[in-house]
Formats: sequence, structure tokens, C-alpha cells
Amino acid sequence: MPVISNKGKAMPASPIRKLVPFSEEAKKRGVKVYHLNIGQPDIETPKNVMDKIRSTDIKVIEYSHSAGTISYRKKLVEYYKRVNIDVTPEDMIVTTGGSEAILFAMNSCLDPGDEIIIPEPFYANYNGFSLTSGIVVKPIDSVIENGFALPPIQAFEDAITPRTKAIMICNPNNPTGYLYSKEELESLRKIVLKHDLFLFSDEVYREFTYDGREHHSVMNLEGVDQNVVLLDSISKRYSACGARIGVLISKNREVICTALKFAQARLSPPTFGQIVGEEAINTPASYFTEVLEEYHKRRNIVVESINKMEGCFCPEPGGAFYAVARLPIDDSDRFCQWLLDSFSFEGQTVMLAPATGFYSSKGRGLDEVRISYVLNLTDLKNSMKCLEEGLKVYPGRKT
Amino acid sequence: MPVISNKGKAMPASPIRKLVPFSEEAKKRGVKVYHLNIGQPDIETPKNVMDKIRSTDIKVIEYSHSAGTISYRKKLVEYYKRVNIDVTPEDMIVTTGGSEAILFAMNSCLDPGDEIIIPEPFYANYNGFSLTSGIVVKPIDSVIENGFALPPIQAFEDAITPRTKAIMICNPNNPTGYLYSKEELESLRKIVLKHDLFLFSDEVYREFTYDGREHHSVMNLEGVDQNVVLLDSISKRYSACGARIGVLISKNREVICTALKFAQARLSPPTFGQIVGEEAINTPASYFTEVLEEYHKRRNIVVESINKMEGCFCPEPGGAFYAVARLPIDDSDRFCQWLLDSFSFEGQTVMLAPATGFYSSKGRGLDEVRISYVLNLTDLKNSMKCLEEGLKVYPGRKT
Repeated sequence: MPVISNKGKAMPASPIRKLVPFSEEAKKRGVKVYHLNIGQPDIETPKNVMDKIRSTDIKVIEYSHSAGTISYRKKLVEYYKRVNIDVTPEDMIVTTGGSEAILFAMNSCLDPGDEIIIPEPFYANYNGFSLTSGIVVKPIDSVIENGFALPPIQAFEDAITPRTKAIMICNPNNPTGYLYSKEELESLRKIVLKHDLFLFSDEVYREFTYDGREHHSVMNLEGVDQNVVLLDSISKRYSACGARIGVLISKNREVICTALKFAQARLSPPTFGQIVGEEAINTPASYFTEVLEEYHKRRNIVVESINKMEGCFCPEPGGAFYAVARLPIDDSDRFCQWLLDSFSFEGQTVMLAPATGFYSSKGRGLDEVRISYVLNLTDLKNSMKCLEEGLKVYPGRKT
Repeated sequence: MPVISNKGKAMPASPIRKLVPFSEEAKKRGVKVYHLNIGQPDIETPKNVMDKIRSTDIKVIEYSHSAGTISYRKKLVEYYKRVNIDVTPEDMIVTTGGSEAILFAMNSCLDPGDEIIIPEPFYANYNGFSLTSGIVVKPIDSVIENGFALPPIQAFEDAITPRTKAIMICNPNNPTGYLYSKEELESLRKIVLKHDLFLFSDEVYREFTYDGREHHSVMNLEGVDQNVVLLDSISKRYSACGARIGVLISKNREVICTALKFAQARLSPPTFGQIVGEEAINTPASYFTEVLEEYHKRRNIVVESINKMEGCFCPEPGGAFYAVARLPIDDSDRFCQWLLDSFSFEGQTVMLAPATGFYSSKGRGLDEVRISYVLNLTDLKNSMKCLEEGLKVYPGRKT
């Protein structure tokens, strides 16, 4: 029997999906499971988008341009103008989800063996894409005590080697919900200029900011337009995760020309996804007002509930729809599994994501979980009650 | 300014798309261009498929399972049974186009530096995906004289090294249209068993066979179910290239589990594409009868026309909708560009794909072009006339 690749063996399994069998077990024993483990919003896709799909009059589902249809890219220019980012259709490669934008950026800018610095905890799949591209993640610590703010500049300086080619951030952050300040972005600007690095910024949660906070994009940093690569996606913005549409944006012509070659190899992004993306930009502003209000309330419930629990701490996230909380537990993987296979409160339990999956350093995240507040207020309150009661009786509780 | 990757620099630009600017020039000077250069069929997507899309009642465009929706995979079992291939939903990973199936197969089965043997000419993007995965293509010669049949077994034996991990074929073949016989597949079976290799088979043109010829799948070869990985796509079968839906199939559990990890990293294949794929399997058989009849006629026109032209040779392809022809020219890249930027016959010209892009060995394919017979009979006849007249006056004509 032929042997599979070491790359495949080393490829991390999804830290979230590995709990799925236990969640199915919970359901089998009649326990209702609240899913706070995934980034799948319960919010409806805007109605105008679904109407557009229903009224399609396409005769042949053709390949589009490898960089995306020109009509969608032109529409994206309009969207970005609205959020104060100035781009042209030529600065963009429409991708199959934000996932592909990450992969194209890594393949275009870094060679196997090159290093990318990422503050951890970070979106788990950055690990997978790095491994696929053969590049090396150099994590630096962001910590729960200050809400996972940008690590001090010295930490970046210490991590930089001759193989360092890029720094990557996610803003607002998945999994922490942290929203980077203008000052933090300024310090990133200085360091990428000083060391001639690429700066990848994943801004898929741009619209999800709370307490009147403003989102600042790396696209508006001065003098680094040749360094910056913006990674984006419509998945969360319009609750259209299954459309699989993202975009890679850069003012660096060489980056775009190179990414286009990777894009040509896979022919084109999905047709219907591009129709979804183009129409989504017509979504009335009221949609976001409502959605944001809802998420704001949810965030408050999560943060307030957890901070009231004995021995727990949850910093208040400025954006996205995630929070990372510190719990008095021995091992977050064990705890999250225990909630599913051994616990219930009034016939209910909660599924959380162990934070270990969001760290690339071994041993970090053992007492942290990520909570996606993607459920309605009632379910969310019930979930918090389950968590509270679970923590009281969990055998691996630390005091 | 930061420097892009050597991988990106080495990534081949699409051999077909690089002619696009010249085709646009031709249109600007008022010349009508017949596009025989691409694999985009003009055939309409089945009506039942488009109706299904128009009647969608989805509220939230959610992520699907990373391996594809279970309902689509179950439906695929039904499709494969119809073409005499016995599989289960657990043998499948639904992919974003056949492209992603190729990439997953390469990443799962081969490590950077490992070698894959592919008879050339081959589908140009195999080169791109190999480069992305860091694996090395070892081409072996198939030749126009015998219609691009499988190279002799000795050629495989000669190419095998300790780094060889896989053999890849495309059946029926893109770009040659060659349909492998049962005997040829049997010899592949022996060689993969002898050397413990993976056998990747791209069978996206399975339905397109002519003159009553039968398609044989590697899935039905005895004793190699742990070696075989089937790569498939709905793009050509149902004229749904933009849906971006393919599938990777293997009875080798380790291959599927590994490919699933790559699939989880990119979350899920596109939702609407899966709806298209599932409904497409309900397409009445009459659709294929008509389509096949049409392609059959087209193939005959192309082959007969070219073989009548002075100094030209086009073997009769047994399948797909491509043919590779040998022309009395100095350089196929130059000739194809010349057709667009310097030639016209009665205000018309033809766009062909230089065969150089389908070879990984330098210097091969210089006197060959690929013709995709994706236009209606009238346009196809006009295209052949353009080619004939072009060859008469081309300055780089060889006698």
C-alpha cells in the first residue's frame, strides 16, 4: 500500500470539528447542545441577495475571469470606498473564500522555509495554510490580561530572522475579538518598513465593532502600500459563509500578478458566489444596524456572565463575534469534551472551542476557550448558565 | 519593497490566457475571433439545474460539511453506480472544482521533492498544482504518431526513481482527446502494484466518448483500490464550469482522512455549486445523447478538415472535446499569436492553444496546437477555413 505524505500526516485536524462526534453523542443521550463553537452566524443572509439568486437568468454556468468578474470587482470598489478604502479592480483577485486569499498571499509572497510572524492566539487555519505552503509560523504572545492587544514591538524584533518575510494580523481578531487601535497599526507600519516585510491583514470582521469604536484598515497606513496585502471575505459580513467568496487586495503589482498565476491554475472563483457578493453590496444599511445591535447585546451577555462566574475572566472584545475567556480548568480540550460527553444541566449543555487550537505554541490555551456568540439572546443566556453549572462540577476544576 | 516568492516567480502563467490580449487586439481591428482555445463549452447547462437554483429557499448560506453535503454525496453514489463505479459517501471529498481535487491529491499523497510521472502532453495546470505542492513532474512521451496512446511500460520503468510516488493520467485526455483502452489501464495497474505507487486518474470527460467506444475507469481495476485516487468534476459533464464543483474519491481510508484535513482548512466547497451538482444528476439521458451527437459531429469536422490541409495531421480522438494537431509551423506560440495580431480571412480569424503549454519538456509541442471543439458546426467550419488560409500565408510555415 502506498504511503501518504508527511505533510498530510502533519496537517492539523480542525480543532473545532474534532469535537463534533462528542456533540453527536450528547444529542443521542437526549441532551440539547448550544453551539458556541463555530463561526457560523445564525443571522439570515440579506433578502435582496437570495432574491437575486432566485432571479438568475444564466444559460451557461461559465468560468469567470480568474481574478473574478469585472462587474463584481467594480462593485467591490464601491464597497471599499464606503469603508474609506481606495482601491481599483486591478488591485484585486476575487478568491474562493477568505481561505484561498490567505493561501494565495502565502504562496505568492513566501517560499518554503520562510517565516511569518503571527500574534497568537490566531485563527487556527493559518496553521493549515502555512503547512500547505511549506512556510513556518513564528508565533508571538498576545495575552488575555490586556485583552490580547498587539504584543510589544520588541517581541516582533526578537522574532525577526533573515527568513522572516511577513507579519500577519486579523483585525478585529478571531478568536479574541480584539480590535487594533490606530497606534498599534502605526507600530506595525514602522516595523514592516524597517525590515522590508509584507503585512497581511485579515479584515473579514471589519463591520463588527462595538461601543462606537472605529475600524482602521492597514490599507490606509502611509508609505507601506507595497507591503500591505488585505485579505477579505463576504462570509461573515453578509452571513454567506457557503458562498465561498473572498478577495486578496494589494497595491503591489508584483503581488497581484503573482497571485493571478495561482488563480489561473484553479481557473475561476464560483459564479453564484460572485453574484451573491455583488448583490450583497446593495444590502441596505439598516441590515447592519440591526445585526450589529444584536451582536452587541450578545457580546455583553457573554462578557458579563463569564466575569460574574467564580475564577473566570473574559476581556471585553471590541469587535468580531468571538471572545476568549479564561476558566479555572486543567485542560480546555478535556473540559470541552466533558461538557459534551459527561455533563448536562436541565437537559442542556454547551459546545465551546478549546483555545489550544488557536495557539501554535504547545501548552498555551489550556485554561482558555473561544466563545462564538452566534446564537440568539435566550439560547445564549441558557448556554452561559450551562457553562456556569458545568464549571461548578467539572472534575478538572482548578481552584 | 518586499520581494515576492521564487515559487510565485516560477509559477507558470496560463498558456492559454497569455494570448487573450492579442485576441482583444484582433477584436479592436474589427476581426471576428473564433475561440477554439478554451475548454468552456457553449452547450447550455441543463434546464432542471437552473430551475433548481431559481427555486432555492435557503435562508442562511451556511458552510457545508468540509467533505460536501451528505445529500450531494449520496446522490453522487447514485451517479457513479450508473457509470458502473461502486463507491460510498465516505469515499468522497467534494472539492471546489476538479482543480482542488488535484491539489488535495498531490498534497495528501506526495511530499515536497517527491515525483509524479505524467505522460505528456498533459493538462497545463498539473504543472501549476505540482509547483504549488512542491512536487516534481517527470514527464514521459506520448506521441502524435499513434494518437497519443499510453507510452510503453518501459518508459514508466525508466522514469521511476526512489522519489516516485504517483502516476497521473487524464482519461479521456485533455489536451489530446485520447481514450485509454482496458489493456492500457491493465498495464498501469501492474506498474503501480509493482512499485507501490498512487495512481491518480482525472476522468472529468468520462461521458464524452465517440464511435461507440467504452470508457474504463481506474476504479474498476482489480487489486489497486488502495492505490487509486479518482479526480472528477461536473464542469464539462453538465456545462457548469463556474459552479466549481469536483470530487476526490478513494477507497484508501488514509488518503480520504488526510484530504479531509486539507478540506477542513478551507472550510467547505461552495453551497450553490453543490446544489447544481446534486440536481445535475437528475438530468435526463436525452441531454447527453444530444450533446454527444453534437460533439461527435464537431470532432469529425475538425479531424477531417485538418487532415485535408497540406502538411497537417490530426489523429482521431476517442473522447473529450479536444484534439491536438500537427501543423507545418516553426513555433506554435508564434503562430497562434500571429493568427490574432496579423491575420484575417474574410474578417475572421481563429484562436488556438499552442501545445507548448501542455508539455513540461522544453522544445516539445512547437509544431502542435490544441483545438477545443466547443463551437457550433457553422462557426467550427469557418474556423477551419481560417486555419487553412492562415497556414497558406504564415511567414513561419515549414514546407
